[in-house]
Amino acid sequence: MIIKGGNIHIMFSKKYDEVKLEDVKEDGAKNVKIQWLIDEKVGKTFAMRRFVVARGGHTPLHHHDWEHGVFVLAGEGALVDKDGNEHPLKPGYFAFVEPNEIHQFVNKGEEDFIFLCVIPLP
Amino acid sequence: MIIKGGNIHIMFSKKYDEVKLEDVKEDGAKNVKIQWLIDEKVGKTFAMRRFVVARGGHTPLHHHDWEHGVFVLAGEGALVDKDGNEHPLKPGYFAFVEPNEIHQFVNKGEEDFIFLCVIPLP
Repeated sequence: MIIKGGNIHIMFSKKYDEVKLEDVKEDGAKNVKIQWLIDEKVGKTFAMRRFVVARGGHTPLHHHDWEHGVFVLAGEGALVDKDGNEHPLKPGYFAFVEPNEIHQFVNKGEEDFIFLCVIPLP
Repeated sequence: MIIKGGNIHIMFSKKYDEVKLEDVKEDGAKNVKIQWLIDEKVGKTFAMRRFVVARGGHTPLHHHDWEHGVFVLAGEGALVDKDGNEHPLKPGYFAFVEPNEIHQFVNKGEEDFIFLCVIPLP
């Protein structure tokens, strides 16, 4: 048994719907919700988040100094770069965003666009 | 455009089947294949692999000093601990394995058991 940050835990499995689905309130985000499946209380070096972007929604067009590793679970979307170029995102697609690249995830379909996004922990 | 390790790349998206599916030849592995979706040539701090464990297959019962973040895409399996306890793994389930925990992924169903597994890069 390993103790970290006041929480005791060992290996576990859970279904995604056991995790709270929270609104993303960052400026520029529209119709975006997030679940922190593996957060900083559990992860040592990376976090795994599940994003749900509803019809007409998108994440902010922004950049930051950490990378993204993405895997699409459902729906149809695009990863947009600083010039407006769109990289397609469908179930079974994965994507990578370099640190400091301007990027945005956009729902391009009629259903929820759902993807995993991994980031390093500080 | 960012240059790393001799490769030039910027953000991208790809479908998983564009990546080579390789046999896992480690001792104790049976009917396991791996795709390195995000490997050390692309990732800065983490790698994302897609595992396909065929019927009757399993990964080695082993341990190592890095953690696993797992998300199940298809099939039915279990994450087994040092005492033989089984944590269920089905589509939509995620799992975490602490550094140095003895663990094994086992296909418990009739179909391919498929999951993503994220690890830190050195």
